[in-house]
Amino acid sequence: MASLGLIGLGKMGFNMRERLRAAGHEVVGYDRNAEIADVGSLADLVAALPGPRIVWVMVPAGEATRQTVADLGEVLAEGDLVIDGGNSRYTDDKINGDLLATKGIGYLDVGVSGGVWGKENGYALMVGGAAADVERAMPIFDALRPEGEREESFSHAGDVGAGHYAKMIHNGIEYGLMQAFAEGFELLEAANVVTDVPAVIKGWQRGTVVRSWLLDLLVLALEEDPELDDLEGWVEDSGEGRWTLEEAIDNAVPAPVLSAALFARFASRRPNSSSMRAVAALRNQFGGHAVKKVAE
Amino acid sequence: MASLGLIGLGKMGFNMRERLRAAGHEVVGYDRNAEIADVGSLADLVAALPGPRIVWVMVPAGEATRQTVADLGEVLAEGDLVIDGGNSRYTDDKINGDLLATKGIGYLDVGVSGGVWGKENGYALMVGGAAADVERAMPIFDALRPEGEREESFSHAGDVGAGHYAKMIHNGIEYGLMQAFAEGFELLEAANVVTDVPAVIKGWQRGTVVRSWLLDLLVLALEEDPELDDLEGWVEDSGEGRWTLEEAIDNAVPAPVLSAALFARFASRRPNSSSMRAVAALRNQFGGHAVKKVAE
Amino acid sequence: MASLGLIGLGKMGFNMRERLRAAGHEVVGYDRNAEIADVGSLADLVAALPGPRIVWVMVPAGEATRQTVADLGEVLAEGDLVIDGGNSRYTDDKINGDLLATKGIGYLDVGVSGGVWGKENGYALMVGGAAADVERAMPIFDALRPEGEREESFSHAGDVGAGHYAKMIHNGIEYGLMQAFAEGFELLEAANVVTDVPAVIKGWQRGTVVRSWLLDLLVLALEEDPELDDLEGWVEDSGEGRWTLEEAIDNAVPAPVLSAALFARFASRRPNSSSMRAVAALRNQFGGHAVKKVAE
Amino acid sequence: MASLGLIGLGKMGFNMRERLRAAGHEVVGYDRNAEIADVGSLADLVAALPGPRIVWVMVPAGEATRQTVADLGEVLAEGDLVIDGGNSRYTDDKINGDLLATKGIGYLDVGVSGGVWGKENGYALMVGGAAADVERAMPIFDALRPEGEREESFSHAGDVGAGHYAKMIHNGIEYGLMQAFAEGFELLEAANVVTDVPAVIKGWQRGTVVRSWLLDLLVLALEEDPELDDLEGWVEDSGEGRWTLEEAIDNAVPAPVLSAALFARFASRRPNSSSMRAVAALRNQFGGHAVKKVAE
Repeated sequence: MASLGLIGLGKMGFNMRERLRAAGHEVVGYDRNAEIADVGSLADLVAALPGPRIVWVMVPAGEATRQTVADLGEVLAEGDLVIDGGNSRYTDDKINGDLLATKGIGYLDVGVSGGVWGKENGYALMVGGAAADVERAMPIFDALRPEGEREESFSHAGDVGAGHYAKMIHNGIEYGLMQAFAEGFELLEAANVVTDVPAVIKGWQRGTVVRSWLLDLLVLALEEDPELDDLEGWVEDSGEGRWTLEEAIDNAVPAPVLSAALFARFASRRPNSSSMRAVAALRNQFGGHAVKKVAE
Repeated sequence: MASLGLIGLGKMGFNMRERLRAAGHEVVGYDRNAEIADVGSLADLVAALPGPRIVWVMVPAGEATRQTVADLGEVLAEGDLVIDGGNSRYTDDKINGDLLATKGIGYLDVGVSGGVWGKENGYALMVGGAAADVERAMPIFDALRPEGEREESFSHAGDVGAGHYAKMIHNGIEYGLMQAFAEGFELLEAANVVTDVPAVIKGWQRGTVVRSWLLDLLVLALEEDPELDDLEGWVEDSGEGRWTLEEAIDNAVPAPVLSAALFARFASRRPNSSSMRAVAALRNQFGGHAVKKVAE
Repeated sequence: MASLGLIGLGKMGFNMRERLRAAGHEVVGYDRNAEIADVGSLADLVAALPGPRIVWVMVPAGEATRQTVADLGEVLAEGDLVIDGGNSRYTDDKINGDLLATKGIGYLDVGVSGGVWGKENGYALMVGGAAADVERAMPIFDALRPEGEREESFSHAGDVGAGHYAKMIHNGIEYGLMQAFAEGFELLEAANVVTDVPAVIKGWQRGTVVRSWLLDLLVLALEEDPELDDLEGWVEDSGEGRWTLEEAIDNAVPAPVLSAALFARFASRRPNSSSMRAVAALRNQFGGHAVKKVAE
Repeated sequence: MASLGLIGLGKMGFNMRERLRAAGHEVVGYDRNAEIADVGSLADLVAALPGPRIVWVMVPAGEATRQTVADLGEVLAEGDLVIDGGNSRYTDDKINGDLLATKGIGYLDVGVSGGVWGKENGYALMVGGAAADVERAMPIFDALRPEGEREESFSHAGDVGAGHYAKMIHNGIEYGLMQAFAEGFELLEAANVVTDVPAVIKGWQRGTVVRSWLLDLLVLALEEDPELDDLEGWVEDSGEGRWTLEEAIDNAVPAPVLSAALFARFASRRPNSSSMRAVAALRNQFGGHAVKKVAE
């Protein structure tokens, strides 16, 4: 059994600590929220772990993660290993890894998928970094991932950065899949030919080409709310969808589906947009077409 | 000077009668609205014209046009010529033309562009049909189109149907152009880097790559309403945009811009859509992401 | 156990006969190919079945199906039931159903999903028609669908037409899902950050948000051909994707992901397209930009 | 008449020197290519101009422009004014402007449109910076822009950066306009209903809603090559289209038309793409659909 430091005990980190402990690993957790933390500081966390140490960082991507990695560089020792399991942009990983390398500290980046279901089902893991570091952390990875064949929920994707790159693309695909189901749902509802839409979608769970976990989740959602009218059609996006599209731009790869899915979310948050007011204005100018005027 | 029967004195037909008369042509207009009509029936219209007659149909596309053509087949004589200048789907033209051909009556289909500005500026015309019929109607076409080189505002596009086909594609392009300007306008407004958006757009009218009539119209709209906030971003569509996309499907031609422009209009009329409620529901299911609940 | 007539023993029908017989049903199969048929004519098929009969039609959509249904109307008797399990457009179903109804013959339309895997795994079924007819055919449906909860692979979607409508939308979604995975695959390959692309995709099979049968199939494909370079990127489309988009147009529902997926297939079959030659020509005109000239 | 230093005498700068001199301005041009330069170094250029000086930079965007601005910071004097007329990303302008401000040197960024036609027709100008600097450079701007109303080809868009921002959006719109025409052209060619495609497009030049300079250029291109088959459908993109899409992402603004136009260019340069090979592989896996195998 391994000993592990775990920094960040939010929605994801908290559950991961549970799952790791259930698998018999010793986990020393640190969080700014002292009520859920096992130790009161990074220094305490380091002191509580036998060397060579493994410390898993699970804090918000960007500044918080970069700062935590830098802080760890100050308190860890040569031969220790830092794992960033957050949703960092893959370009941060080289910076983080290079910084720690100057001190002889190893670095792995891990894309983690599974959401709130991961505690019970296990988390899928995509890892970037040196093979020896990956091997060393394997007991941790094996405890976090679902039971069964390792290769079906774990990959060593490449060098430092490759784990987060793989997770970014995973999320980009996820955006596209969700939007595809969403458009199909709207078409089923709009045409009034299918009179039992939830039954049709439930009936796609086995035997069809579209069977998938997202479909299963849509079935759950429809069981709670058959017309989904408790919710508003207002959808946030997180970094990975945007980064995926920026990656498409940088590599000159067309990504029409992934961009359409992202734009649908943007549009859901822009009712009465400038663009459509401009189209309305143009139609009015050239054709005298009726427009909706804002009520006085 | 020619004599012409003109059926349908709506927004377009009324103006065309004015323009044709201003050019010295004799026009006998018929409309269901007796107040603006010159004659009280199709039979009166036929009686009022010396043969061989030319009758221009300018009524709503679809059933109204097909019925009018059929009615004309009953009252016109061999050697007469019917011109459909409405926004008919090009597939209607073969039906109309074949029907009239059985009676020895000629048929031309004409796509007419120019909107409310056409009365003063002239209408651009795209014509389908037999060359001899086109030649025969040329004095009418020359009066309707803008002054100057005929080839810059008039085309004989091909056989029966080709005029409306060309107009359909013209309108499909128009959808794309409008949406391109609209997206640019929204980006100018959203970023707050450009502080005088109307000035920038006005400054594109000459010397730029994007200079165009639609740009000129956007300038006019912004002069009336600099932030376009008297209007709602709720945009109708007419048949041609849809038909263009169906044509793309039938010919297996990708049309990502034209479809995006059409879908933006559809979306403008579907706030809180089923599809985006479905995406919100999925995010909530797998990630426990916050969603906007409908207020109690 | 039921007796069933089955017309059309192609890739799908042949396998379905096998699966039905394995479940203990008596199946009398007819096909124009006498080598695989059980009887030599529709009349023989009818004679071989005890009444009231159930006849499943599994022939190509469109003319072939409509003709088969019409032929069955001539040879079947009042109280018999025809099931169209092919990929008919849902608008054909009302025509077929009404025709048979005049003779007192029942009609169900069934969307069947499962492809070549259905023989072993079972087929998912979406059914349109009267509840009594659905109930009567249930033993057949139960034998064709996967084992387990009926509601997870079978739905009674609504009246006649609803089964094929649901299947059409299923396939539209399928187009979107496939394209989402395809774009992700291209982005993984293009950036050269992930050095073991097949391992990453295999590692998404469990625990991730994107886990799905299509992902499993992509894993199988990559196991056979890790860079997929035995194949050409030239992709056909069948009717359902096009019909789904036409349905979106008719119902004024935006479908950006489904259309992008369809257009990507169209584009894959149009190298050196007119549209991109036009863009190249325009760039050359206004900017003197370099263009690729066709080699002399 | 003003005196102006002009750095960079490429396709654009060379023509601008001509146009400025034709208007009576004194221009001292510097270029790394001594054959076309008026002076041999930046120092010579500075020495040749009476103070307070105006120096226009017209070199490639990015590193070359940033370096040139930095070099000018070393040789110019307080009270001088630098104008970047290249295609810099607007985020560079703040850096450049701040650097020069520390030395009391003014800075304007100017988006310039007009391409190879600008020498004769004039260039449209979008300017960012302080009002006093704009006023000071106005004689130069007036000489470069087309004759006529200043407001129709010149705008003071906002503070430093706003000129290049406006130009970026201009080019993003331009991508969308070009693709809209291109799709329409392909649809005209594909359907074989219109038999004289060049005539139809020429006939759109006056009176239509789509009349525009890009349409005029398409007419010119078709006059040279009626089916555009001397060119390959392989289209480059420059920075502005990509930047516009990145700006849409950063501001959470949907840009379906602009992205579709950019992706069409990307796709034109990726025949036999990984993504479409993946879709072909998936179809083959689930349906046994025929695929094109690479020839042995």
